[in-house]
This record gives sequence, C-alpha cells and structure tokens, in this order.
Amino acid sequence: MPAHGTVAQRLVDTHLVEGKAEVGEEIGLRVDQTLTQDATGTLVMQELEALGLDRARTEVSVQYVDHNILQADERNAEDHAFLRSAANRFGLWYSKPGNGVSHPTHMQRFGVPGKTLAGSDSHTCAAGSLGMLAVGVGGLEVALAIAGRPLYVRMPQIWGVRLTGELPPWVSAKDVILEMLRRHGVKGGVNRIIEYHGPGLASLTAMDRHVIANMGAELGATATVFPSDDAVRDFLRAEGREADFTKISAAPDATYDLDEEIDLSALEPLVAQPSSPGDVVPVRQVAGEPVSQCVIGSSANPGLRDFAVAAAMVKDRRTADGVSLDINPTSREILQDLTRSGGTFDLIAAGARLHQSGCLGCIGMGQAPAAGRNSLRTMPRNFPGRSGTEEDSVWLCSPETAAASALTGTLTDPRDWAAETGTAPPSLRLPEHASVNTGMLEPPLPEQEALTVELQRGPNISALPDLDPLPDTLTAPVLLKTADNVSTDEISPAGAKALPYRSNIPQLAEFTFTRLDPEHPRRAREHDGFYLVVGGENYGQGSSREHAAITPRYLGLRAVVARSFARIHWQNLVNFGVLPLEFEDGGDYERVREGDTLHLSGLRAALAPDAEPVLRLRNQTRDQEYAVRHRLSPRQRSLVLAGGIIPALAAE
Amino acid sequence: MPAHGTVAQRLVDTHLVEGKAEVGEEIGLRVDQTLTQDATGTLVMQELEALGLDRARTEVSVQYVDHNILQADERNAEDHAFLRSAANRFGLWYSKPGNGVSHPTHMQRFGVPGKTLAGSDSHTCAAGSLGMLAVGVGGLEVALAIAGRPLYVRMPQIWGVRLTGELPPWVSAKDVILEMLRRHGVKGGVNRIIEYHGPGLASLTAMDRHVIANMGAELGATATVFPSDDAVRDFLRAEGREADFTKISAAPDATYDLDEEIDLSALEPLVAQPSSPGDVVPVRQVAGEPVSQCVIGSSANPGLRDFAVAAAMVKDRRTADGVSLDINPTSREILQDLTRSGGTFDLIAAGARLHQSGCLGCIGMGQAPAAGRNSLRTMPRNFPGRSGTEEDSVWLCSPETAAASALTGTLTDPRDWAAETGTAPPSLRLPEHASVNTGMLEPPLPEQEALTVELQRGPNISALPDLDPLPDTLTAPVLLKTADNVSTDEISPAGAKALPYRSNIPQLAEFTFTRLDPEHPRRAREHDGFYLVVGGENYGQGSSREHAAITPRYLGLRAVVARSFARIHWQNLVNFGVLPLEFEDGGDYERVREGDTLHLSGLRAALAPDAEPVLRLRNQTRDQEYAVRHRLSPRQRSLVLAGGIIPALAAE
Repeated sequence: MPAHGTVAQRLVDTHLVEGKAEVGEEIGLRVDQTLTQDATGTLVMQELEALGLDRARTEVSVQYVDHNILQADERNAEDHAFLRSAANRFGLWYSKPGNGVSHPTHMQRFGVPGKTLAGSDSHTCAAGSLGMLAVGVGGLEVALAIAGRPLYVRMPQIWGVRLTGELPPWVSAKDVILEMLRRHGVKGGVNRIIEYHGPGLASLTAMDRHVIANMGAELGATATVFPSDDAVRDFLRAEGREADFTKISAAPDATYDLDEEIDLSALEPLVAQPSSPGDVVPVRQVAGEPVSQCVIGSSANPGLRDFAVAAAMVKDRRTADGVSLDINPTSREILQDLTRSGGTFDLIAAGARLHQSGCLGCIGMGQAPAAGRNSLRTMPRNFPGRSGTEEDSVWLCSPETAAASALTGTLTDPRDWAAETGTAPPSLRLPEHASVNTGMLEPPLPEQEALTVELQRGPNISALPDLDPLPDTLTAPVLLKTADNVSTDEISPAGAKALPYRSNIPQLAEFTFTRLDPEHPRRAREHDGFYLVVGGENYGQGSSREHAAITPRYLGLRAVVARSFARIHWQNLVNFGVLPLEFEDGGDYERVREGDTLHLSGLRAALAPDAEPVLRLRNQTRDQEYAVRHRLSPRQRSLVLAGGIIPALAAE
Repeated sequence: MPAHGTVAQRLVDTHLVEGKAEVGEEIGLRVDQTLTQDATGTLVMQELEALGLDRARTEVSVQYVDHNILQADERNAEDHAFLRSAANRFGLWYSKPGNGVSHPTHMQRFGVPGKTLAGSDSHTCAAGSLGMLAVGVGGLEVALAIAGRPLYVRMPQIWGVRLTGELPPWVSAKDVILEMLRRHGVKGGVNRIIEYHGPGLASLTAMDRHVIANMGAELGATATVFPSDDAVRDFLRAEGREADFTKISAAPDATYDLDEEIDLSALEPLVAQPSSPGDVVPVRQVAGEPVSQCVIGSSANPGLRDFAVAAAMVKDRRTADGVSLDINPTSREILQDLTRSGGTFDLIAAGARLHQSGCLGCIGMGQAPAAGRNSLRTMPRNFPGRSGTEEDSVWLCSPETAAASALTGTLTDPRDWAAETGTAPPSLRLPEHASVNTGMLEPPLPEQEALTVELQRGPNISALPDLDPLPDTLTAPVLLKTADNVSTDEISPAGAKALPYRSNIPQLAEFTFTRLDPEHPRRAREHDGFYLVVGGENYGQGSSREHAAITPRYLGLRAVVARSFARIHWQNLVNFGVLPLEFEDGGDYERVREGDTLHLSGLRAALAPDAEPVLRLRNQTRDQEYAVRHRLSPRQRSLVLAGGIIPALAAE
C-alpha cells in the first residue's frame, strides 16, 4: 500500500505545482526559502545575472559565507565582496563571513515549519528537523527557485523510521544517524524521504533532530522530515520566534512505503571508520587506536549542547600530549551562548584551539591532519582527502566520543572513560532564551535601492562557460573509468587549494578528477574534444557542488555511463547538458575499459519526449554494444539536448 | 662621550664571553634562553641534528608553534610532529599549536629580568620589556646558542629615549612606537640598542613596553631594553613568578651614545600607511578612508588590555556593514582572561571573528584582505604582499584606532569617535592574577629518555643543502638589482603558499625573489651557476628568516652587493656563506645594471684575517671597477670562505 498521511506528503501536497505526487514521477514544487553558501553561491549569483533576474521571488533567500573563510589570499575576500553586492542587488539576505554555518544559522533565524527550502548545499536537508521539506540541489536549481520557478524532483518513497525508548547516558543524536548508516550504508536512502516518528521523538530536541536530518545526506536521501511538535515550539520560543510555529504531524493512521524501527535505548557510541560515512562500527570494537586530532563542531553537530557536553567533559582536565583538540563553532549565537555559560572558557583552558564560526575543516579549509594519523571528527563526511590531506585517516563520531578521546589520546568509548574517571553524565543547563544576534545578517535592500547596486566582480570571478547543444552523434573516448561510490569531492575537490577557484571555472577545471587521475585535466586538454566517463554504483555521492558537472563539461565531458547515480549530481549533470546513462546490464560495466571509444548516434530522436528510454551504446574499440537507460523526464530530455538549462532558457 | 651606566651595557657586561664591549666591535655573549618558532624552527632542529647536539645547554629553550597553524594540508601537521619530536629529543620545551604566539607566551611563562634571549624570530626583541637583552637572529645562530656557543653581535650604540608625561586618553603604547617610526623610519635603529628611561615609564605596564620593544625590530634596532622596575615586578607577580624578579636600572649618572625625548602627553593616534611601517602620519590626516577589515592582536599588541579596550569600545554595538573585525588572540592565557572578564563575549556579540591563538594574518596565514581594499591592523608590519594579498593595502595602528574604525567603516581617530558617540575612555579592570596555564607546554624530557626519541621526519622535511666553499675567483652575472628597503618577505615570502615549505629548501627555493621577479627561480636554474644580486639601502629588512639566505644560496647566489644591509639578514648571509659587500661609493649602485657580469678575484687572500676590508669589484660588461667593503670580523671571514658555519664547524 502506498504511503499516506505522512508529514512528507503533506509538505509535498501543499507545494505541488506540477505533476502527480506518485513515487517515481517528476514533480514541481513551489520553493518558499533558499539558501546558498559561498562555495556554490558565486555561481548561483552569476546564474541569477544570466537569468536577468531583478529581485528574488521567494519568501526568504539567504546568501551565507561559511566555507572559504580562511582567506589564504585575496580571492576569498573578493568572493565575499561579490556575494555581498549580489545579495544586495537581487534582494537576498547576506550573512557575513564568520557569522556561522548556513544550516544551524538558517534553522535559528529563518526556519519555519511547513515551508520548503532549496539549498545549494547537500546538507540543506538538516532543516527537516523543523518540519520543513528541505532539499539540497545544484546551484542552478536554486537560482531558478530564487527566480520563482518550481523545483523539480522525482517523488521519492517515504521511509518511516519509528523511534522508541530513550538514549542512554553518553550516547547522543550522532549515534542515531550513525546507526542508520551502519544498517544501510551510503546508498540506503537514495530516492527516499526519511521520516522519523514514534514515541522516541519526545526526548530529542530540535537540534538533536538537526544532527540526524543533516546526515540524511550521507544515506543519499532526498530529504529527511521530522514532525513539528513541542520540541520545535520550544526551539522557536528560545529563538524568540514562537509566532513562526505551526504544528505538523502525521495522520494517526499514517503508513509509509517502507518501515524501520530504532530502539534508542539499545544504541551505543558508534564511529564511521576511514574513509566512508557508511563504514560504521561500535567505538569499543576499535578502541585504543591512537588519535592525533579531535574536532568538534560542523553542521553535523552544531548545537550548543554538542559543545557544552564536550566542555563539561574536559573542564579542569587537559588534552593528551600530542593531541590537537579543535573547536569549530557553528553559529555566532551558539558561540555567544557557549561563552556566556562558561563552556568556551573551559574548552580553552583544557587546551582546545577555538576557530571562527564556519565550516573550516569539514570542507578541508584548515586543520588538515598529518598524513596517516587518525583524526576524529564530529563532521558529516570522511571521503578520502576531503580533510585537505591526501592520505588522511578520518573517523566520524559524537562529541562525547571525540572529547573522551582527546583526553585519553586514543579512540575511547565515552562510557569507558566515564567509568574509569568516575565521571557522571554532565547535567547540562541550556539557556531558555538563546542569544539572538542579527547584527551580522544584512537584510535585503529596498527594491529601488537594490536595482542600483553594481556587482563587484573581482579578477577571480570568471564568466560562465558557453554551453553548446548536445550533438546528434557522439563518438568519444572513455577518458576515465571509476570504481563505486565516487564522491563529488573526487570529481571536483574542495580544500584550500581548489576552493578559492570556485568562481573561476577555467582555473577550477585544472583540479577535475585529479584525486583519481592527476593527469586528467592534461589528458582532456590534449584530447581536445568530447569525452565520456564510466562510473560504478552511486556515482557522484556527497556534496551538491555543481562544479562537479561544470568543470568536466568545460573540459569536454558530454556523457557519463554508470551503474547508478547519486541524486544531486545526476541532476547537476542534466542541468549542464551532460547525458547521464545507466547500464541496463551491470555486467557491461566490467566489459568497457578506459581508453575505449564509444559511439551514440541519433541522439535527437532517441531523446524525443515519447522515445523509449533505452539507447544502444556501441563500443567501437571492442566491437560490443551495451543497452543503456536514461531516467530523464521529457522536460529534462530537452534540457540535455539544448546543452543545459541556461541555453534552454535563452532559447525560450 | 661613550655611553656608560646603562641597562643595556649591564646586560652585555654580565654575559660577555669574547671581545670588548666597544661600539662596532664584534662581541660574543652567553645566551641564557632561546626561542624558536615553527616557520624557522624546523631548520633549527635540523641544524641541531647536523651539529650532533645531545641536549640543550641553555637554561631555557622553547620551541613554539604559532606561525603555520591554518593547516591547509598535511604539511603543517607533519612539521608540528617533527618539531615536537625534536623538542623531546634535544631537551627543549614544546609549546603546542594554538597555545600562543611565542613573544607574549615567552614573556608570561619564561621571561626573567637580566637574562639574555636569542630567538629565530625578528620580534624576539619584545622581551626587552622585562629588562632582558633579547635579540632576533637567524636560526643557525639560535642552534649554536642552544648548543652552548656564544652569540656574536657587533656592539651597537646605546640610544637613550627619555619618556616624560603620560599618554592621553585614546592614545596607547602602539602610538609611542609609531611615533619613533614617524621620526626615524625603518632604518633609524640600525646598529643601535634602544633603551627607554625617564619618568614617563611609570605609567607604562610591562605589556605596554612589550608593544614598544616588539616593533623596535621595525626600526632595525639590534635590541630594545627597558629597566626592570615595579611594573615588571607587578607583571611577574600576576603571572605567579614574583620570585623571578630582579631590579635592574641604569646608574643615576648614566649617559647614552645618542639621546632622544618623547613627551607622552603630546602624542596622538598614529597610523603607518601602506606599505611600510615607517610611513607614519596622524590618523586625522587620513581619516575617512574606507576600511574593509580591522584586525586586532599579534605580537605587536598582544596584551589583555589591547583586546579588552577593543571589547569595551564595541560592547553593545555592531561592526559596520562590509567590515570584517578579526580578533587574533595571542596567548591561551590572555584568551582565558579575556573570556573570563566577558570581553570575548562582547567582541563576538559585536560581530568579531575570533581566531585561534597564533600569528595568523600577521604572517599572511589567513584573513588576507581583498586586493586594494584597506585593511587596518595592530600588527607590526605591512610590507607589500605580507598579508597574503599581492596588491594589498595594509595600515598599522593601535587597537583603539582599529576598533573605532571597525564601528564606523572608515579610518577613524578614536578621539573623534568618542566625542561623536559620547563615549568615555573605558576604565579597564584587569585581573591581579593572570590565568596561568601550562597545560599546553610540554616540559623537556629527562635526559636518558630524551636520548631515545626518534625524530619524526615527514615527507615535507628535506635535508639541508650541501654548502661548498667560496671559490677564490667569482665571475658571475647580476641576476637581480633591487631598490632600497627590500624586505626578507620579498626575498623569501611567507604566506599560505610558501610557508608550508619552510622545511623543504628545494621547494621553497621556487619562491625566491618572486615578489620582485616572478621568473627569478627559472632564470637562476637556467643560468645554473653562481650569481650575484645588487641591492639598495637596508637590504633584507624585516623578518629573521634564514630561508632568505639559504634559498637564493641554493639557487647559486654567492655575493650580494648593496648600499647597506639590515642586521639579521646580513648575518644570515654570512652564516650561509654568501659574501655581503657594500659600495664604498653609493653612486656605483647606479652604474651597475641587471645582467652585468661582475668579477672578484683573489678572494682567499682578500678575506684573510689581516687583509684590508675593501675589495675591487670589476664590472666586465661595462669595463668599470667599484670599491666594495665587507664588514666581516676575522671569525666571519673564515666562515664565508668555508661556505658557511655548518661546513666550517664540520672542518673543525
């Protein structure tokens, strides 16, 4: 029986502007709010310009600056000036550098139950904690949403996860989502909305739910949804926004497309081993590993509680010799509350290094660990090299596990540390009213004033590349064949070297696929024509960066043939005119080799609105033919043929 | 009449182990304490290894990690692991990354009146605030000091600066040293020890004196000395170290080689304009300039008072739109005190970005401003590009001026801001007892344990290059001719790109002189032989980094002919076997051109201990001859002939 009466469906139904909300159907949703950050936002602002937009048509659109705030050279600061001018020009809010990570900051200041949110950041889904339908998408889709156009998604299955019991001492929300990843791995949520329900919810605060919703991205889920209940009301009241509260709950007889159950009282501290968020084991199973770095913070553990528990654990103690304890505050307000409560002092006194509010090491912008030495982080991802260190060894865990390990110098189950030191679980008294601070949020300019703003384009802001239509016949080499679960970090890396070029496609293209093949950009330039990539399962997981579609496209990529795709990257490929195809017979993946020349003909007819979705892909090198399937809606077929959304809109 | 009865002379006399303390004579001094930091320390540790040292022979030697703590990739963290292992091996203290900037941290935990301190950082002179003789020198000289050898300097003139009166409201210690720079410029202190005395001292705390002593480096002074009086006793008492106090004052009839007077009550807020610390004007003369960044902190304004005054000014206010207010705490203890007093909270609430304790933007490691936009900093230096931004526009000022400007968005005299806002000068209540925190300072290991420590050498730690003797005849081209006041930042840049290679000479050499000629490393490699550089006045001012001698030497530099040299770089050239020569006739500087081939013959005889110090330098290209003078002591002549200290010691 299909799902009915769920919170997710209610959110879809109230925003449906195109299509039928049936699993697998493409639907168009009205977007109430958007968020962009600096690593993806400079392109979004250029896209708004290319679309000729005068003013945002959403209820709330916010441009955050949280990713590139190390400012190792002038490019970051120039990007910030550009983003500020664009926010002023297009009627967006502007959150100044160092104000905070988009996800917790948005939740605190702008999140409203029942609204939709599209964000050019894969962890946008965190806002599901407030009963929002929040979806991470490519920047171009956010640009279109800001321009008032619908957001298109395939209606996912609704995956009901019933929570019972209460978390034991020293086990926290991070362990809930790590348990989901332990059970289901990094593809477990693909084409699903995860909806949490059940009596266990009562003991989870809104910020606990943020932790769980945030890393729904790591399961590949389209979105994560919580009901809007008393916990949400308490949160909004503390933020001085109780008026924004609406109760949203599932019908008493709601059913889900799939069902899951987690007994919170049975959970224990978990850790994701290097180098996948899906490789989860109990901490005790790997306890004793030496650690050289413990990092607390990021959008995956952003709440005051997460810092306060660590502060209580390290108070009047000292980090172990040879261990760096790094604190990445996530929002200015939370840092204020932590400082007021004394937690900041306790962390500093214990030896913690306190960093500015932002994404920092989560996106490889600083605090890169030494090669091969274990870094324990409360962050959402540990894809290879994402920390900024090529040969890194990053583990993901709760703040409790990170703090205990920082004190012992080895990977430590906090329960064992507590028993050994005779430490009782800290009784945290969190403030009833949060430190609301809007001083670093510049509101949209009045419309007449906004129209006069000039975009401040520094020398590092390039124009978007020209996007030509897909040719009718494509004969091109496979310049790269990848394994399963390649992330967008491997397609277009973040980190301190590449990230400053996020506004500069020609420069950024020099990093394309270099984690997999350092010579890829050179080989693509030497080939000087169209090429293909062959991928395994879950191709393009991870970050929403559309750069992972644009930069290979800029180098000549016109089609990717994979066993399967991650949702956001698949959509980004389509948006930028790269044809995503899936092997009908997974075994064909084994038959094609790097360097083979592949051939597709009659593409215009093959991608006609009513044509069959299966194409014949000829391997000229090996004299083989493979059946490959596209999953494009009729709308998307025309986009790919046109070369992407931008040329398609230009032709309208 | 030569100086007598001064504090400086007493410090020299009590440590003299070679030579006569007469102006211009080379003297050898016993070194009680050393400090090294990470940007220079990795070479020092390799030098200790090359010297075969088993254990430090000083009273206190501390290895700080404060420069490279952004950790944009694995190299920083690997350097830290190497430094920690070397500190353990050689019996040094190790100050963990993020514990604090060497100068204030050393002052708080280790500074002792009457002692000598040699540091491989040009701002080591800051410790003169405690009545120490503290000299910034090249790393190799620090290595020799750690090994128990004397520190050699030319006995400088003693420059007495008599302070009278008291600073007016909104004027602080930074304005005193800016006044010295306004009067005398960046060469005003060359071959001098600046000794402050007079009734004005009574109103300056030890940390105020640190501000003044620190930027003695910007005047080119060998050292700055204050007496050890009640202010020093108060400071040491607050740090829990009153037992370390000794009173040291000048004789009642002391006289100085030169005399200067500053009436503190007549000073006003000053600012050094881009891009020299010596280009100082009153703030009111340039008020109204738009600013996009204000940075408070660094070793030039490290004290609790400097942050607390800014916190009081911004409390319950907001930074101007478009302005980034950046706080670089300078030591863990000071950050603890600031946090305990509520100052940290007030800064954060006003919009400040709080960074970890370290050097950060002062050395171009983060918070680089946008090109051409004004950045106002309390830091000691604004050499072109040092901020990390090629086309930067950096101004140097007091915390009061920086805070007022962050609130207004334009360069603002704090007196004018106070009058306009009706703000009274803040009455700061600083704690009587500082937050002493030694948790991040690892003490030296016991000797037997230390001997068993293995150095942890990551892949980025190269070996020192081979250093061959000076040839008897040198015929070589002038690959570069520079203008006056070239800094070591232009010879071997800092910043986020170059600094991670400070342990890797071949890689770092690729940055040599690139600020002046981006093609220099390529041209040197293509020439593939010995070469010369011609410099103007004050060649090699600024940072003490010996990399500015080693990397050009690695590329083939064997002599620099300049109008004059800055002290530390001159010494570094000698230490690494590069012959420093000065034009007897300054006009000859104009006659020689880049690309000319110069010729020196009979060098072995010309550098014999008793030979005349004037050589004939033949310009083969123009058929000219110039008289050039070296200022080498007999000891130094043998070092240069041997190819530097390391081969000279190896030959002993």
